[in-house]
Amino acid sequence: MSAAMPEDSRFTVFAGAKVVITGGLGFIGATLARRLVGLGGDVLILDSVLPGSGANPFNLDGIADRVVVERCDIRDGDAMRRHLAGKTFLFNLAAQTSHQGSMVEPLLDLDINCRAQLALLETCRAVAPEIAIVFASTRQIYGRPEYLPVDEKHPVRPPDVNGIDKAAAESFHLLYHRVHGLRSTALRLTNTYGPRMRIADARQAFVGHWLRAVIEGREFEVWGGEQLRDLTYVDDAVEAFLLAAVAPSCAGLALNIGGEAMTLRRLAELLLDANGGGRFAIREFPAERKQIDIGAFTSDDARFRSLTGWAPRTGIAAGLAQSLAFFRANLPHYRQGL
Amino acid sequence: MSAAMPEDSRFTVFAGAKVVITGGLGFIGATLARRLVGLGGDVLILDSVLPGSGANPFNLDGIADRVVVERCDIRDGDAMRRHLAGKTFLFNLAAQTSHQGSMVEPLLDLDINCRAQLALLETCRAVAPEIAIVFASTRQIYGRPEYLPVDEKHPVRPPDVNGIDKAAAESFHLLYHRVHGLRSTALRLTNTYGPRMRIADARQAFVGHWLRAVIEGREFEVWGGEQLRDLTYVDDAVEAFLLAAVAPSCAGLALNIGGEAMTLRRLAELLLDANGGGRFAIREFPAERKQIDIGAFTSDDARFRSLTGWAPRTGIAAGLAQSLAFFRANLPHYRQGL
Repeated sequence: MSAAMPEDSRFTVFAGAKVVITGGLGFIGATLARRLVGLGGDVLILDSVLPGSGANPFNLDGIADRVVVERCDIRDGDAMRRHLAGKTFLFNLAAQTSHQGSMVEPLLDLDINCRAQLALLETCRAVAPEIAIVFASTRQIYGRPEYLPVDEKHPVRPPDVNGIDKAAAESFHLLYHRVHGLRSTALRLTNTYGPRMRIADARQAFVGHWLRAVIEGREFEVWGGEQLRDLTYVDDAVEAFLLAAVAPSCAGLALNIGGEAMTLRRLAELLLDANGGGRFAIREFPAERKQIDIGAFTSDDARFRSLTGWAPRTGIAAGLAQSLAFFRANLPHYRQGL
Repeated sequence: MSAAMPEDSRFTVFAGAKVVITGGLGFIGATLARRLVGLGGDVLILDSVLPGSGANPFNLDGIADRVVVERCDIRDGDAMRRHLAGKTFLFNLAAQTSHQGSMVEPLLDLDINCRAQLALLETCRAVAPEIAIVFASTRQIYGRPEYLPVDEKHPVRPPDVNGIDKAAAESFHLLYHRVHGLRSTALRLTNTYGPRMRIADARQAFVGHWLRAVIEGREFEVWGGEQLRDLTYVDDAVEAFLLAAVAPSCAGLALNIGGEAMTLRRLAELLLDANGGGRFAIREFPAERKQIDIGAFTSDDARFRSLTGWAPRTGIAAGLAQSLAFFRANLPHYRQGL
């Protein structure tokens, strides 16, 4: 969001508000923290700094003195209890995010993405029953789509352990609204990209891997190429988190957050355009990824738009240009990022 | 099944086969063990004898010297590894079965019904990759039905922590078939009743609670009364488990097991008929149950019938009569059952 644009009047509630962000050193969590600091929020970041999570202290560059950061694993119930007592907003983004990793270490994924989430909700009931929670869910839980674009009525059929765990965690969040009255919303994110995303390798998000390759002048691989994906620029995703937190009509709902739909090949071409050059190669899907690949995906986010007035503001060309500019200026901080 | 009826020729594979039943001291597990002993199976029963689980050594009366029983919690990974190595069939019935209990102790429910199930599948991959697994799932995962009868295409919307955990465990079983080739099937059971069910209190199944009341000459309460439910006699459920284990076409599928549909009021009347007297009172649903009640439910089990030829053989009148006869003869063993 441009600094010149007036802030949404609904966001005045964040001024002075006690806000917790789990996974707040990561890509989306830290971008959310930056925005909340701008809104005058009293921000506590919890992050376990897990390898591969994208946690990166540099993500807080420029706001580090205006937030509190605690190294804290959401699996640590006592610590969570201490940190959540009396808070007003919880942006719950802590996760193990690798799909392939969840197939290799399924119980680790379950403990972080499912068990700790249930424990967190119990903690909120006990020490912060009035807290407004926004949980970062994922379009991955739908599995291979039966129709496009996918709306929230689409069956939930997770293709991997990570998706099963995230789907269960999402269900817990909605159940705790229905039965215990917690003000909890789940946002089903699609491919979010932008400055501060993880680019060290392809473990988490292919876009980051591509961004790094073009900046370093290397060819990148596009697996398949004809699959549709939609892309959400991180500032638009952050706006969605804030709106979900302040819109009472979102409580108890799981809502899609979409973006701009295109084939991976088209996205790769746009990236080369934004970079003013570069090259990519179309490759067959690797076998171990194909097992859990979901094919084409585009998201129908009409419900969230109508409930909140949200709409993405940053088109793909601008989003890629801003991402490239950020990583060109800050590459050493992200090349070997966690 | 009557002793005079010839056994299904598909069940000859159980003669001498190494079979594990988790939750094998419970109602369905023990009835399955009795049947498998009759088929010549080499049966190992694992049970943690949790309070409220229905585990009851008397369930093995008459076959106790022909099975091996180990007190073993499925959360104990080392023990499970030892017990599963080299086995051919796994009937996986161990569970925390109380819906209300899952709302009071959600993490306990998750550890037993979800985390331990994932660990069990990992163990099977490691020490018994050829094993055929039948997992006891539940119609509870559908939540409040959108239409009746409910087929397997119905959305999965669990109404409580127990349902979310069971749904995740079921998904793990099917995923491990799809990705790792385990021969795993999930049966979504509805209300199973019959001899050896838990009747100590209403914690697990209302039918057991009613059976006990009429035998003891007490009035029982029917909550609501107009809700449809279908009832499966336990011998029919056991037949379904055996068929699922030997039918390769069931692998990787979650399949409904239904029964005879009727209102709770009608079921109560049939119970009084079978008993030759008694009384019940229609009552409002208690508030804490209403939160997680699912309304009317009937199951469409056409898919399982067509895949296996299964059909229920014991009608409700005969099933209730056999249940009453059993509990009249054995009441002291069940009055204070776990």
